[in-house]
Amino acid sequence: MKYPNSLIQLIRELSRLPGVGPKGAQRLAFHLFKIPHEDVESLAEAITTAKALLKPCPICSNITDEEVCAVCSDLERDPYLICVVESPNDIIAIEKAGGFMGRYHVTHGVYSPMDGVGPERLGLDKLLARLQRDVRTGEVLDPSRFEVVVATSMTTEGEATASLVHHQVSALGATVSRLAYGLPNGAALEYMDEVTLGRAFNGRQRI
Amino acid sequence: MKYPNSLIQLIRELSRLPGVGPKGAQRLAFHLFKIPHEDVESLAEAITTAKALLKPCPICSNITDEEVCAVCSDLERDPYLICVVESPNDIIAIEKAGGFMGRYHVTHGVYSPMDGVGPERLGLDKLLARLQRDVRTGEVLDPSRFEVVVATSMTTEGEATASLVHHQVSALGATVSRLAYGLPNGAALEYMDEVTLGRAFNGRQRI
Repeated sequence: MKYPNSLIQLIRELSRLPGVGPKGAQRLAFHLFKIPHEDVESLAEAITTAKALLKPCPICSNITDEEVCAVCSDLERDPYLICVVESPNDIIAIEKAGGFMGRYHVTHGVYSPMDGVGPERLGLDKLLARLQRDVRTGEVLDPSRFEVVVATSMTTEGEATASLVHHQVSALGATVSRLAYGLPNGAALEYMDEVTLGRAFNGRQRI
Repeated sequence: MKYPNSLIQLIRELSRLPGVGPKGAQRLAFHLFKIPHEDVESLAEAITTAKALLKPCPICSNITDEEVCAVCSDLERDPYLICVVESPNDIIAIEKAGGFMGRYHVTHGVYSPMDGVGPERLGLDKLLARLQRDVRTGEVLDPSRFEVVVATSMTTEGEATASLVHHQVSALGATVSRLAYGLPNGAALEYMDEVTLGRAFNGRQRI
């Protein structure tokens, strides 16, 4: 007794998705078997439609289905303030928090030479070019007028990415900053790890 | 700044899948954005192909892409021994364990009147009909020749399902049995819950 081939194929495809795994793929496949045909069609269609329409913004690599993404086409936003994030959903989080009125650069990953992810995979050439020339008008720009805020994760990989960005961007004379280390809102000290606590102490500010 | 519509639609579709949720759906969507078009195509195709080809076996409700499933079409297997399972992957697990040479009935879920899952949704009418008449030859059968082994989960819902099956099947005069309760292989007593331990004591056997 073995599964039908089309089921094996479906489970194989599903198990290649991140965070799914063989057991999850089985569960998903049996779920698809049980729900109505229309629902399966609309899932498959959403996948192919999104894949066909969505592309990286040519300026900042944010996901978009327009010529240029919604942030880059908003001329109210400060063009000299660029926040570097790992993923488009970091943009959503930052926009929800509000207060940041600059633009973005999305790396779609973290610096990891061991996994073959070097500066080019993070689109840093595009970021560096943006500091020197206006993509749309071709006007030459002074990199030292820019501030690049690195908002990658506070993890080893995120830090490596931040230090790579810092290295390359500051070489052009632009200012590079990093999000503040410290205690998150609502944090109980006893549950904080020592690295976070140490950094919160080092970054303490007079009140 | 908001996501493009096709991305919102994709995330909505993905988040309806079991065990995915809104965050997982986002991660999946960004993954699909990053991988090659061919890979996305073959995923979408695997979904629609499987959905088109796969159907429940008319006899036992196991998933199949043939007229009758691989187990039901195997005439070597004992037709008077039927194991009731919740899902087709339980069949795979039992077949891997080996030793069971009967057939199956798949309920595709557990008895849960509160969620609208009654005996008809579990296909019990089909199971009861099988005990009385050969589906293919039309020959009248004697239900008391059958043994139905209930292999639903050892959970509240699995037990409720087992008791429903027992009630309906034994009314026809067939024998109903349940998988043994006890300690799993490799179990350390100190980590076993008291219900399991209690059942293992009650079911103790002379050696």
